[in-house]
Amino acid sequence: MSDPPAPAVPRPRVLVVGAGFAGLAAVRALAREPVDVVLLDRTNHHLFQPLLYQVATAGLSGPQIAAPIRHVLRRQRNCTVLLGDAVALDPVTRTLHTADGTVLGWDALVLACGATHAYFGRDDWARFAPGLKTLDDALALRRRVLLAFERAELATDAADRDAQLTFVVVGAGATGVELAGTLIEIARHTLRDEFRRADPRTARVVLLEAGPRVLAAYPPALSGRALAQLRDLGVEVRLDTRVTGIDAGGVDLGDARIAAATVIWAAGVAGSPLARALGVPLDRAGRVPVPATLQLDAHPSVFVAGDLATVIDAAGRAVPGVAPAAQQAGRAAARNLARRLRGEPPVPMRYRDRGALATIGRRRAIADFGRLRLWGTPAWWAWLLVHVLFLIGFRNRLVVLVDWAWSYWTFARGARLIVGREDRPDG
Amino acid sequence: MSDPPAPAVPRPRVLVVGAGFAGLAAVRALAREPVDVVLLDRTNHHLFQPLLYQVATAGLSGPQIAAPIRHVLRRQRNCTVLLGDAVALDPVTRTLHTADGTVLGWDALVLACGATHAYFGRDDWARFAPGLKTLDDALALRRRVLLAFERAELATDAADRDAQLTFVVVGAGATGVELAGTLIEIARHTLRDEFRRADPRTARVVLLEAGPRVLAAYPPALSGRALAQLRDLGVEVRLDTRVTGIDAGGVDLGDARIAAATVIWAAGVAGSPLARALGVPLDRAGRVPVPATLQLDAHPSVFVAGDLATVIDAAGRAVPGVAPAAQQAGRAAARNLARRLRGEPPVPMRYRDRGALATIGRRRAIADFGRLRLWGTPAWWAWLLVHVLFLIGFRNRLVVLVDWAWSYWTFARGARLIVGREDRPDG
Repeated sequence: MSDPPAPAVPRPRVLVVGAGFAGLAAVRALAREPVDVVLLDRTNHHLFQPLLYQVATAGLSGPQIAAPIRHVLRRQRNCTVLLGDAVALDPVTRTLHTADGTVLGWDALVLACGATHAYFGRDDWARFAPGLKTLDDALALRRRVLLAFERAELATDAADRDAQLTFVVVGAGATGVELAGTLIEIARHTLRDEFRRADPRTARVVLLEAGPRVLAAYPPALSGRALAQLRDLGVEVRLDTRVTGIDAGGVDLGDARIAAATVIWAAGVAGSPLARALGVPLDRAGRVPVPATLQLDAHPSVFVAGDLATVIDAAGRAVPGVAPAAQQAGRAAARNLARRLRGEPPVPMRYRDRGALATIGRRRAIADFGRLRLWGTPAWWAWLLVHVLFLIGFRNRLVVLVDWAWSYWTFARGARLIVGREDRPDG
Repeated sequence: MSDPPAPAVPRPRVLVVGAGFAGLAAVRALAREPVDVVLLDRTNHHLFQPLLYQVATAGLSGPQIAAPIRHVLRRQRNCTVLLGDAVALDPVTRTLHTADGTVLGWDALVLACGATHAYFGRDDWARFAPGLKTLDDALALRRRVLLAFERAELATDAADRDAQLTFVVVGAGATGVELAGTLIEIARHTLRDEFRRADPRTARVVLLEAGPRVLAAYPPALSGRALAQLRDLGVEVRLDTRVTGIDAGGVDLGDARIAAATVIWAAGVAGSPLARALGVPLDRAGRVPVPATLQLDAHPSVFVAGDLATVIDAAGRAVPGVAPAAQQAGRAAARNLARRLRGEPPVPMRYRDRGALATIGRRRAIADFGRLRLWGTPAWWAWLLVHVLFLIGFRNRLVVLVDWAWSYWTFARGARLIVGREDRPDG
């Protein structure tokens, strides 16, 4: 007879909301801490968001850029993964409610549920101009884009055909530039020879930007390089151009109008609505300003990380909304959370900037590594290398490489499937 | 100045409905004929249906078993591919209408729009027990299966947890056997160690069959081998068992009941409803009986091929509903169609049976090559070889091989993503 087990000492409960780059990094950083972690996400997969535009444009399949969260964390025995959509939380009673009625308590919370699209008060535009944040968004966008070409082939009227072959992307940040560059390549190369009535090579891709330059987060010289590469590809870039209306037939720009069957929103993001429940002031985009410790002054058991937070780091620099920054913030939040449970003071995070890359198309990209700036082919190879190495899981990496190598030589795209029901307002 | 082009001689218009194995084979067989071909399909992809269960069970992604139809046919200049859902046809006026209002005429028609699920008059079962015919079906089924495991982890009640971990497959034909075998492997191997509250290894997979044996299209000895392999895997096989009711909570078998959150229908197929518009007698399953020439006696401009047809070939054998038979029938229909346009008499088709294979699980399968019958590991390797070689497109083949090799060694499944909206009646 063995001794009865010692009475279990209750371990602090840590709740992490969101399995993006910040949330997943926080959970992993807690692997050896004496805590019980619950990771809640509304999907069952961790998404490699920087390549989501490739799914939307049929270059990659969903599974190639997403991994089941519980598979990623299967060996971390102190973590339970739950599927659920957080709809309410109370930082005073330390409870969170999900849409299906599950109630989760916490001794410490890491809120990392990211951002969603923002239409600047014009939420009625959402159904005409979908955005790109989730895998479902990407599959819906892929369906829209591919259906537009199919409808051009079916069109019996020249104006309708032209509208079907016009693609408008609103917003020239990284996502907008990637989408516009890829769409023009699909029209000019991938689909050539496949249609008998419409000619995809006549398709227009229009990139609208309210500000004076594309990729405004980069130095002006690199923005200029990016603009030149976009125009060289055939994208119509319009700077200092404000959208005043969007409907099923196109986009209004003040007095002008572009007839387009497909409009894609890449212009604005807003923090998850869950942030409002914290009862602290939010910034204009609905994000949570937190100190460099990532801990809320008003609720010290609550940490915020990733795209939901706006942070000035220990060196006084704004932490950007990119994947490596979210991972660093997730780890910093976990570290401070663990210190707090041990009774130690928090340590402010210091963002390590490893550079930034944006791709525009085949052998077209820009890269900013501080003193080293690249564009064109070298930047594109750097982009490819970084993204393939960064993808989670060996299998994905190998399969994605095979796919990309194939696409590179053939211009084919491997995931040109229309699936799902139609949800376009025009039928 | 060159001469003006000769006045175009109007070429006969051939309309092919359905880009499955039969329709695609018919189109390809017409590549060198002096005809204008229109290929109409309701999806944009040709589907490798024999591997659809792999998509439903998260082993493969959609793009790995589907190819864009117009990409497959891009070099066949006499063929126009159109996306559309045929809703009506008139063999007298030789016109076909699609759901979006397109009207297509023909001088000769190949009807190859296949089969759909049949619930034997119980269409109310469809929403509780979905079937598996299209890529959308497969993605919906994948979502249901993966959500059931997620809900088991969230369940607070033992009976609910058990129901979530019970999977009922109705019908022990090839699809039912493949699904049951794969589901038990997912529960026992793929998901082990990934859940903290529920234990996937306790999941039940129940395979219900109204007849006296599984895989009834095979010789009885091989059916017995398949049954033994299924039971060895852990599948509960119930023969001579008739389903009397299906609802959101489970399945009724006369007085008995199985509580199950997931029920999958693999029991019956029916010819596409479009067949009724032909005005000829159909068989009990709504398929079109055609002579071995595949030409309708009542409407000699109409040919029927693939799963929509029931055919006795020139040697008096029933042509089975498998992919190689559909391809042979598609080619035979195209040949007779071309002969008819040249004023030559039709030639009856002669089915070349190259054998049949069914897989049950990892290194479990049966194979019937006439005098050579295999089961277990040799049959499974034969199945794998045939299916990989048969897949369309080199890229797909290579990527699928990498994926399968990885799955084989690790038991992991590469496409475990829940996407799309929920459409379950219970929430």
